[in-house]
Amino acid sequence: MDNYTDSASEEFIVIKAEENGVTIIGLTRGKDTKFHHTEKLDKGEVYIAQFTENTSAMKVRGKATILCRHGQVKSGE
Amino acid sequence: MDNYTDSASEEFIVIKAEENGVTIIGLTRGKDTKFHHTEKLDKGEVYIAQFTENTSAMKVRGKATILCRHGQVKSGE
Amino acid sequence: MDNYTDSASEEFIVIKAEENGVTIIGLTRGKDTKFHHTEKLDKGEVYIAQFTENTSAMKVRGKATILCRHGQVKSGE
Amino acid sequence: MDNYTDSASEEFIVIKAEENGVTIIGLTRGKDTKFHHTEKLDKGEVYIAQFTENTSAMKVRGKATILCRHGQVKSGE
Amino acid sequence: MDNYTDSASEEFIVIKAEENGVTIIGLTRGKDTKFHHTEKLDKGEVYIAQFTENTSAMKVRGKATILCRHGQVKSGE
Amino acid sequence: MDNYTDSASEEFIVIKAEENGVTIIGLTRGKDTKFHHTEKLDKGEVYIAQFTENTSAMKVRGKATILCRHGQVKSGE
Amino acid sequence: MDNYTDSASEEFIVIKAEENGVTIIGLTRGKDTKFHHTEKLDKGEVYIAQFTENTSAMKVRGKATILCRHGQVKSGE
Amino acid sequence: MDNYTDSASEEFIVIKAEENGVTIIGLTRGKDTKFHHTEKLDKGEVYIAQFTENTSAMKVRGKATILCRHGQVKSGE
Amino acid sequence: MDNYTDSASEEFIVIKAEENGVTIIGLTRGKDTKFHHTEKLDKGEVYIAQFTENTSAMKVRGKATILCRHGQVKSGE
Amino acid sequence: MDNYTDSASEEFIVIKAEENGVTIIGLTRGKDTKFHHTEKLDKGEVYIAQFTENTSAMKVRGKATILCRHGQVKSGE
Amino acid sequence: MDNYTDSASEEFIVIKAEENGVTIIGLTRGKDTKFHHTEKLDKGEVYIAQFTENTSAMKVRGKATILCRHGQVKSGE
Amino acid sequence: MDNYTDSASEEFIVIKAEENGVTIIGLTRGKDTKFHHTEKLDKGEVYIAQFTENTSAMKVRGKATILCRHGQVKSGE
Repeated sequence: MDNYTDSASEEFIVIKAEENGVTIIGLTRGKDTKFHHTEKLDKGEVYIAQFTENTSAMKVRGKATILCRHGQVKSGE
Repeated sequence: MDNYTDSASEEFIVIKAEENGVTIIGLTRGKDTKFHHTEKLDKGEVYIAQFTENTSAMKVRGKATILCRHGQVKSGE
Repeated sequence: MDNYTDSASEEFIVIKAEENGVTIIGLTRGKDTKFHHTEKLDKGEVYIAQFTENTSAMKVRGKATILCRHGQVKSGE
Repeated sequence: MDNYTDSASEEFIVIKAEENGVTIIGLTRGKDTKFHHTEKLDKGEVYIAQFTENTSAMKVRGKATILCRHGQVKSGE
Repeated sequence: MDNYTDSASEEFIVIKAEENGVTIIGLTRGKDTKFHHTEKLDKGEVYIAQFTENTSAMKVRGKATILCRHGQVKSGE
Repeated sequence: MDNYTDSASEEFIVIKAEENGVTIIGLTRGKDTKFHHTEKLDKGEVYIAQFTENTSAMKVRGKATILCRHGQVKSGE
Repeated sequence: MDNYTDSASEEFIVIKAEENGVTIIGLTRGKDTKFHHTEKLDKGEVYIAQFTENTSAMKVRGKATILCRHGQVKSGE
Repeated sequence: MDNYTDSASEEFIVIKAEENGVTIIGLTRGKDTKFHHTEKLDKGEVYIAQFTENTSAMKVRGKATILCRHGQVKSGE
Repeated sequence: MDNYTDSASEEFIVIKAEENGVTIIGLTRGKDTKFHHTEKLDKGEVYIAQFTENTSAMKVRGKATILCRHGQVKSGE
Repeated sequence: MDNYTDSASEEFIVIKAEENGVTIIGLTRGKDTKFHHTEKLDKGEVYIAQFTENTSAMKVRGKATILCRHGQVKSGE
Repeated sequence: MDNYTDSASEEFIVIKAEENGVTIIGLTRGKDTKFHHTEKLDKGEVYIAQFTENTSAMKVRGKATILCRHGQVKSGE
Repeated sequence: MDNYTDSASEEFIVIKAEENGVTIIGLTRGKDTKFHHTEKLDKGEVYIAQFTENTSAMKVRGKATILCRHGQVKSGE
């Protein structure tokens, strides 16, 4: 389980749902880029997620505010 | 127990409940992204949590102020 | 699977689709630079993707806002 | 005891009690997130605590001022 | 495949085509500096490419906006 | 004794007593968080203490000015 | 091929040709400093090149704008 | 004697005595926090001391100006 | 050839000839400091050169603008 | 003699004597903090000294200006 | 020859002769500090030299402008 | 000779003599702090010297301007 240790300081993304039914999809790292996790957010919920050894991309559907190292974007508008 | 050592300086999130019943859910790192811990906060309580080898995502439900490296967001509004 | 660990803090790009049908194409790292993944975005969707051991280039088609370490560009205009 | 050495420069949180009976609860790192230490503060007392190999989360109950790398929050209001 | 890992955080260049037919040519690292990849962009397309173990130089032909660590230049004018 | 070496550059806290009888309590690192050292300060005395392999938390009782990386707080008011 | 990996984040120079026939010459690293690559640019073309294990110097002939870590210079004027 | 080497760049504290008889006490690192060195300063003398493998805390008695990474404090007032 | 790899990110100097016949001389690293390379520049040419395992000093003769980490100087005036 | 190498970039203190007979005393690193070197300065002389594997504290007597990483202090006033 | 590699990014000094006959003397690193290289500059010539494994001190005679990390000084005035 | 390599980027001091006969004395690193090198400067000469494995302190006598990381001081006034 040792190889998880350093991941804990990695990049993370903050997503605040601005409506019900915002969807955050984690896509797999590696040769195939497939959906491996889907998180549903209701209005006002905040989801904070790191890139991990399993996730190298995320997709946000629906009206949300997204915060990351590069600044802020609004999805779903 | 050696592999915990470096984790102690990793990213952490500060969450202040602005109403009773704020819920913070820790989601598992790894292939499956499942709930593994749920923390309930009453109004005014502050919870400070790191990403760890077991937690790579968190979900906040209810009215709260969230502080992290990327700035501040308000959940539950 | 150990070699995935450090990748988790690498460069990532944020892409917000400003119209339906925005396409993000991942191109392979290595001797051959070929398409290996295509992601379609509808208007308002946000895609956040890292460079990985499989992807060393990305191509964005259609009207989108792109955020990265070097600033912001608008595609499709 | 060698593995404690590096922990000494890790993240720490400063908590000043603004009323009697402020409670700081340390939660365990690892698979289970359980209470493992409870510290009671009287009004005016200051508690300065690091994240450690045993503690990856803290909870503050009662009126207090909390200082950390991400800024300042007031609990219990 | 381990040796790809660190490359993922390396320098990258953002190129936005301002006309049809913008060409980006990757040149080989090593003793011989030869063309090894050619990417054609239509107007509005954005291409984001890292230097890699195979590419140590790039050439841009046609009207484009180029963003990198050292600032911005316009090609093709 | 080699393992002490790096500790010498770690975090330290400066505490100035603003009245007689200020108490600084060092709490143990590890599974049990117990008092292991108590330092009494008279008015005007300054105490400068590092986190160490034995101390991961400190508690200040009485009127004092506390200086650390996160700024300044006043205890005992 | 492992030894190429780290080179990918090294210094690079951006050269924009302001006239036809701008020449960029790569000179060999090592005991002998000889021409090993010559790149011809037409007006408006942009060339982005890293220092590599084979190239430790570059020479620019003709009217061009050169961008690097130390700022900007104009050649050929 | 090799293990002393890195200590030479560690944290140090500057103490200027503003009256005769200022006392600086070094306290031992490790399980027991005991006095192990006492330095007496006359008015105007300046003492510059590092944390070391033997010293993890210092106590200043008497009127003095103290300079460190976190700013300046006056003892003995 | 592995030992060249890291050199690629080292210090470099930018020299723009402001007249014909500017001379840049590379001097050998090591016990003897001898000329080992001479580069002639015509007016307007720009030469960008790294310090290498063979070159630890450079000499510029003639009217030129020199850019480096420490700022800019004009030779030959 | 290899273990001296890294010490060469360590902390140093600059002391300018503002009167004759300024004394700088080096105190030993380790269990015993004893005088091991005394340097006498006449008015106007400047002494620049590093912390070393043998010296972890210095004492300045007499009127002098002291410069270090934490700012400037005047001794002997 | 491997041990030269890292030296290539080390400190360097820029010296511009403001008169004929400026002399730059390299002094040996190690137990004996002796002259090992003398470079003569004519008015307007610029000399850019690194500290090396053989040179730990330099002496400049004659009217010159000297640029380094700590700022600029004029010799020979 | 390998152990000299890293020293080349270490701290250095710039000393400009403002009168004839300025003396710079290098003092030995290690248990004994003895004079091991004396450099005489005439008015206007500039001496640039690193701390080395042999030198951990320097003494400047006579009227000079001294530049280092901590700022500038004038000796001999």
